[in-house]
Parts: sequence; structure tokens; C-alpha cells
Amino acid sequence: MTGSRPVPPVRAASVTRYDAEADVLVVGFGCAGAAAAFEAASAGADVLVLERAAGPGGSSALSGGELYLGGGTPVQTACGFEDTPDDMFAYLKAALGPHADEEKLRAYCEESTEHFQWFVDRGLTFEPSLWDAPTWMPPSRDGLMWLGENAWPYTTLARPAPRGHRCATESFGGWKIMEKLIEAAQEAGAVTHTDTLVTALIVDNDGRVAGVTARKYGEELTYRARKAVVLTTGGFVDNEEMLADHAPHLLGHGRISDGLDDGSGIRMAAALGAATRRMSVTQIALTAVPALAVRGMLVNGHGQRFVNEDVYPGLFSVAAVRTQPGPYWVIVDEEGYEAVPEAERWGVFPRFAAETLAELEAELGMPAGALESTVGTYNAYAEKGEDPYFRKDARWLRPLKGPFAAIDPRQGFDPGEGGSANGGTGIAGFTLGGLHTTVDGAVLDLSGRPVPGLFAAGRASSGIHGEGYISGTSLGDGTFFGRRAGKAAARG
Amino acid sequence: MTGSRPVPPVRAASVTRYDAEADVLVVGFGCAGAAAAFEAASAGADVLVLERAAGPGGSSALSGGELYLGGGTPVQTACGFEDTPDDMFAYLKAALGPHADEEKLRAYCEESTEHFQWFVDRGLTFEPSLWDAPTWMPPSRDGLMWLGENAWPYTTLARPAPRGHRCATESFGGWKIMEKLIEAAQEAGAVTHTDTLVTALIVDNDGRVAGVTARKYGEELTYRARKAVVLTTGGFVDNEEMLADHAPHLLGHGRISDGLDDGSGIRMAAALGAATRRMSVTQIALTAVPALAVRGMLVNGHGQRFVNEDVYPGLFSVAAVRTQPGPYWVIVDEEGYEAVPEAERWGVFPRFAAETLAELEAELGMPAGALESTVGTYNAYAEKGEDPYFRKDARWLRPLKGPFAAIDPRQGFDPGEGGSANGGTGIAGFTLGGLHTTVDGAVLDLSGRPVPGLFAAGRASSGIHGEGYISGTSLGDGTFFGRRAGKAAARG
Repeated sequence: MTGSRPVPPVRAASVTRYDAEADVLVVGFGCAGAAAAFEAASAGADVLVLERAAGPGGSSALSGGELYLGGGTPVQTACGFEDTPDDMFAYLKAALGPHADEEKLRAYCEESTEHFQWFVDRGLTFEPSLWDAPTWMPPSRDGLMWLGENAWPYTTLARPAPRGHRCATESFGGWKIMEKLIEAAQEAGAVTHTDTLVTALIVDNDGRVAGVTARKYGEELTYRARKAVVLTTGGFVDNEEMLADHAPHLLGHGRISDGLDDGSGIRMAAALGAATRRMSVTQIALTAVPALAVRGMLVNGHGQRFVNEDVYPGLFSVAAVRTQPGPYWVIVDEEGYEAVPEAERWGVFPRFAAETLAELEAELGMPAGALESTVGTYNAYAEKGEDPYFRKDARWLRPLKGPFAAIDPRQGFDPGEGGSANGGTGIAGFTLGGLHTTVDGAVLDLSGRPVPGLFAAGRASSGIHGEGYISGTSLGDGTFFGRRAGKAAARG
Repeated sequence: MTGSRPVPPVRAASVTRYDAEADVLVVGFGCAGAAAAFEAASAGADVLVLERAAGPGGSSALSGGELYLGGGTPVQTACGFEDTPDDMFAYLKAALGPHADEEKLRAYCEESTEHFQWFVDRGLTFEPSLWDAPTWMPPSRDGLMWLGENAWPYTTLARPAPRGHRCATESFGGWKIMEKLIEAAQEAGAVTHTDTLVTALIVDNDGRVAGVTARKYGEELTYRARKAVVLTTGGFVDNEEMLADHAPHLLGHGRISDGLDDGSGIRMAAALGAATRRMSVTQIALTAVPALAVRGMLVNGHGQRFVNEDVYPGLFSVAAVRTQPGPYWVIVDEEGYEAVPEAERWGVFPRFAAETLAELEAELGMPAGALESTVGTYNAYAEKGEDPYFRKDARWLRPLKGPFAAIDPRQGFDPGEGGSANGGTGIAGFTLGGLHTTVDGAVLDLSGRPVPGLFAAGRASSGIHGEGYISGTSLGDGTFFGRRAGKAAARG
């Protein structure tokens, strides 16, 4: 589905027969769709999930599998951390802000330990051990990781506790989570129709969503929803026209998606007067290896530092791409480079190396003295264990000494290591804005009234995010609000 | 009018009588309304302008009065500059971008000399002389000023020519322009009803806009439009809820407006399914005195430079507020400070002064060595007439030497000098997003079809701007597209 315009609904009066029907139709079988289908079916509803791809999974299945959970989960406790919903809320309010949705965020934090248990009950296991260094994804089976909670200024806002939960796996965990959730939804009774692209909503004379039209292998189909339709169709990073309208800064960069996040659900609902929120908000990732950046420094094209390198790496990525003149460079010395095992380097290699900073800055095309000045200042303070500029934690501070290397943090990952996900540009992103929903997933129209019979969750909706992002809040809020939408849809 | 939700229309069938009628109703009497009213009346239409304030003028009358015009105006020629629509287009495409509206921008540039003549024909005079230094507004009667065209990197994209046109005045010129445009509209036959707040659009059974409801001194009134309604109601910087929804980064800052830019026109049109564009885009101004900044440097809270100080000051303001850690400081030495006459200093005074940079950086709470390092590097290159970091023009480069001063560029202007406009915070802005219109001002709905009988111009619409802004493009595009909307509305 291309274009950025609303997709007009089909009038129920014009539908002469339905090819199938269910109490609840779920459109899209990623994490939000699976969670919605499971809960709706568990509540006794007859559930049909329509998925356009040849099998379920969606973008969720391709993800790293982090789940942002806290407030005192058994994994946190086993690792020796105390946590509360209030500390979790305080951290996320700042890290996902400004302007995080506080009502959704409050529910998400208050019920987070219950949501953790829900994953366990679905068959996922979590090792009670912590990966204790900045990374996008640990090269280990550790069940817990920091996602910026221990970096300044967040340490001043909430008691730090690691909240990145990972099910026991040594690689991308998204597929493992989706396997369990798909199985759970199907065991609860949800039926799946794959290769089925939903093309429009069907609306009755009272304005109530009564079903959908779809296309399967060129055949036009109609589906009736006795109670409700739940849109879990994903974001719109794969729709160039929608990006141009709402988030043009992502144009030309890589896309973190399964290639089918074309905003179709948002556009179908918009034609019914549904409101959207935060359509310009996105997440952006550089391929910079956090373990290298934290041992050295991240600089802009002028050789200036601009962020503490021990923050959540999505935060330094967004800071670079949205606020700094490029190109960006990770500068490390030999000791820092050697300290990171090859397994953690993700196939990334230095683009330039030099004995002195004067040589390196010349190779990088920076003004003479640029790196010498930045590193000189950094070293003088690092000697004292201080970083008065950006307050990187003292454990990572050490004067850097030659030989030095510069690594392009926009360099694509080695294709053997998930490189396809970033489109080869080394800067890749996805969208966070979408349909305006209640805390129970009801889609609101422009006047703030629910569109009867219509729910949404996952990246088709605007969730807990304001203008910021933290790993684990996509699968986290997609499943959390997917569950709530599924329950509400089953009530009809 | 508060709130952010669409304002539902009134059905024509429910209107029992009209208190007044006209071919064309223009809602709002700022620059866009005046231009629309003039052209509609000149084309023979019977025109009524409804203005909520006690008199016409709007935010336009409070503005500095810059008009962004070029392509070879008589003022440019008299000052010795050659210019073409193509160079003007190339500059604005970059400076107003990324994602400037190229169709609107092309028309704006191609017809700019004609638009200049239109102002002359309305009785405005322009002195054939250039103010040749960075400034928000020259303290002179000069008719021409640079608005960033001679700053890198724009010098590499288009042949530089100054295009900031100012009518002969020694102060804020907005009121002078509005005087002439109001007079012109009224002489052409447009009638004005002041103190008349339009409260809703009236729509007939075919979905055509047929008039408006209004309130005057507590009395409810109805106005019939035989041909069309033109919304020139301004932006939405005065509506906190709309800001929270669309441009939350402006919350808490000052507002550049007459206090009545509450988005009412956008909200009335939205209820008819009208589309909006670029609602998150804003302009932001620091009170930094450009003549001081260009002679010294602008640094962030870490003492780092981040921009060439000779760009259009709105650009360095946005760069500071949107991308840099505060507080920001203009650092000047005594020679630079004394070089700027008091009349150009706008009542701004240093907040800190010190003999040495070590003292100054301590006073500013920066890490020791921060300013010494930045100024040291700057001076070493300035000695050679170079700025390899940001390419400030050589005419402004000179090694800085103590005593030094730091000026807070967020400091409010002296109240005697227009200080009320920035709300006292020293960071003030306004919105650039609004209704999606054609190049002739027709308001488009979410499906891309014109809403019958409805036009918009000025800041109620999204104009030539992408994500950037240059002074003179508000009055410039408001009048240019206001004229086109007025002509189209008169055709009905």
C-alpha cells in the first residue's frame, strides 16, 4: 500500500456477503497482534488474525528482543537490584520524553512485574545474570542489561536499576519471543489467515467498524467483526510519502522493519476521522559499537565531543544524527580497542589508524588541532577520574594514548550479523507516532471520541513515547497495550 | 478559543437568517487577510473582512517589517546586486529546508519582482541602500539587508544577493506595511467588521463552506459567503494545547504574536476534514545581538562553538535552542563590544566580564580550560584569516584578547525596545505549520481534494517553509499567497 492519504472505508450496506467472520479481527501478527489475539481469545472471544506476510512475526520477530520491564522483577531481584514502579516511571518519563504519555506510562510501570510474569507464563525463560557494560545487545545469555539507567543525568532523577530484560538466547531474541507468543495465541484459540492483506475497514451506517476487506492471492475477501477490529499493523517507516509528510529526516536512511511497515492501519483509520499523535517522532540508531565508544569518545565532524558515551546508545545516535555536523567518529586508542573482544565488535573495524592525533585529524579531514584539543582536555580530566563536560562514569575514564583509531559509526554491520536490518547505510530508524488511543487501545477521533469498534496497539499507535526512545519499549509497549486492546475488544 | 480539537461546523440548514453577506468573507485582518481582501475586491468581488481585535493589523503589524523579495528588484539593482529567480530559489530551498514546498517556492521566486512592485503600488517606499552587517533589524532607513545569503554554506549553493527588503522606517516596519495594506484593501472596497470573533464555519448540504458564525460583544451573528471564505487567522503559538500536541518544544518560551494566534482557523477547517502540514515546524529567536556575536563567538554551555556566527540569526538561534546544551553565551572582547554602537546593542548588556578567559569560564560555571581551549583554537586560525570549523567570513575574524565579556543571548530586550514580544524569556518563537493548501490557497482535505468554498493563507496555512525559516518570509509568503487566495476566492 503506497501513498500517504487516508484509505476510504467500505460501507457495510454495500457488502453482499462475508467470506469469514469472528468476534474480534486482529490485523497484523507482530508482537502487539499476538498479545491482543491471546487476550481476546483467552477472554472467550472468537478471534481471527489477518497477516499480510506468508507467516506471523512481523518486524517484532527481527528485533533484538529486549523487553523494558521493571519495578522489581525476579530477574532484577536475583541480580541484586531493588526497583520500584516509581523509579521506573521517573526514568522513562525523562528518557522517553519530553512529553511522554504519562497515563500510559503510569499503567506500564505499575503493572510491569505482572507483565514480566505474563512472558514467563508464555514459556520464556530469563537468566538471572547481568551484562554490565554499554551495548546494543549482549553477546551472552544474560537476562538483564542496562539501558541508560546508570548514566548521567538519569542517575540524578531516579534510583538506577537495569531494566533491559532478555530471554535466554545468544543472538537476536525477537524471533524467540514471537515463537512463544504466536504459539500462545493459537493455543488460546486464535485462527490465523496469512498472505491476507487488509485493504480497507468496513463501516456500518452508525459509523461502527464492522469488518475489513482484504486481498489474498489476488482474490478480494470480506471479513465481518462481530465485536471489534484491532489494528496492529506497525509503523510507517516503509512508506516514503508518509515519511515525507511527517518524519522527513528519516528519508534516505535505513529502515528497521520487516519491509511492510507502510502505515496502512493508520491510513485506514484516518479516513474515519481517527486522530494521530507524535507523527514526527522517530528512533534512530548508529551502528557504533557502544563498548568501543565508551572506552574512547564519540566526536562530530569538527572533532568535538557532544554526549556522555555511556548513555543508552540510541540516545547518542539520535544526538549525533539530529544535532551534530557529520561525519561522526568513534575515537579509540589501542588499549581501548583491544579491551573489547571480537564478539562484541560486531564485525566493525577501524577506518583510519594513526600513531598521533595530528596524523589522525589530518586523515579525517578535521582542522589541525581539532582532536588534539578535544583529547588533550579529555585526558587532563580523565587523569583525575573526571568528565566535567558530559559526566561519563569514572569506570570508563582513562587518558587515551597513541596509537589511535577512528571508526565510522555509520558503517554497516557485517552482513553476517544482521546487517540487512539497517539498509546498509549505518543510520537506520523507525517511526514512533501513530493513532491516538486510550490506555485500553480504543482509537480516538479528532474530537476525542472513540471510533466505535476500533482498537489499535503497537507502532500503529502512539504509545508511551514522547520524543525519546529506549530499547525494549517497542516489544514492551506493543505487548502491554496489545493485551489491553485485546481484552477491551473482546468486551466489544 | 482554547483547546486543540476541531471546531464543528454549523449546518446551513439550521441557519434561519444571515446578519450580513458578501461574495468573499476574509477571516482575520493581518497581512494575508489584507492582501486577500485587496485582490478579491479589486477583482470585483464584494468583500467583508472579519477581525476579532478592535482594529486590523494582527501579528503582522507588530513585526519588524522585513519582506523577503528578490530576483532582481529595483532596490537590489540600485545597490549593485544582480539577482535571478533561480538564485533566490536555490538559496531559499536550502535555507527554508529541508523539504521546502518547491511548487510554492518556485511561484514565490518567479513572481517576486512583480510582488515587490505591488508593495510600491500600495504606497510603500524603499531606500536604495544596503545595511551591510548581520542584524535582526537595521537601526537605519536602509531598504536592503542580508538575511544569510552571504554566509557559508549558502555561498556555495547560490550567487549571494541580499534580499531582505525594508520600507523606509527607522523602527519596526510591520505597522507601516499594514497601514498601507489596510488602506489599499479598504479603498478597493473591502468592508471591515472589527471586534468580530468568527466561531465556526457554516457548511451546506453539499459540503460547501457557505459562511461563518461569529460573536461580537456577546451577540451571536451569522455571515453568508456567496463565493468563498478565506481563513487568514494566523498560527497557533498562543494555543498551549495545540503546542503540546504539535510543537511542544515551544512550551514555556516566549511567543512572537499579537496574543491571538490561537489556531482557530486551523481547527475550524480540521472539522471539515482539512489536512494540515508541518505542524511541528517553528521559528525560534534568541535576543542575541548579531553584531556582537559575529565579532566574537557564540558558545554552548560547554564553551564549544557550534555555528558560524554570520548566518541569519534565526538559524543560529534554532541551532542553539534545538541542538545545544545550554546556557548559551555570546563571548566578545572589549574591541568587539566597543565596535558596536549603542543603538545596535538593543539595550543588551554583558552579564559577566573578566580580564582573562580562565576567570570568565569560572564565572560561567564551565569546566576549567573550556573557553581557553575554544578561544585559543579560534585565535590561532583567526590570525590567518581562517575559520576551518564554521567558515565565518574573514571580515569578522580577528584574534580575541582580554578583557572579555559574556552576554546571555536569552536576555530579554530592554522593554522600551519591543521587549513585550518575546515574553521576557529571551527565547521566543512562532509556528509555521498549518492548513495544507494549493498554490492558489485552496484548502485541501485529507484525501487531497479541495474543500469547496474554503481558502487559507498566512500562518493559518503551511507555506513555502520546510523545516527552516528566514526573516521576511512571513510577511512575504502571507501577502504573496494571500493575494492568490483572494483572486481565487473572487472567482468562486
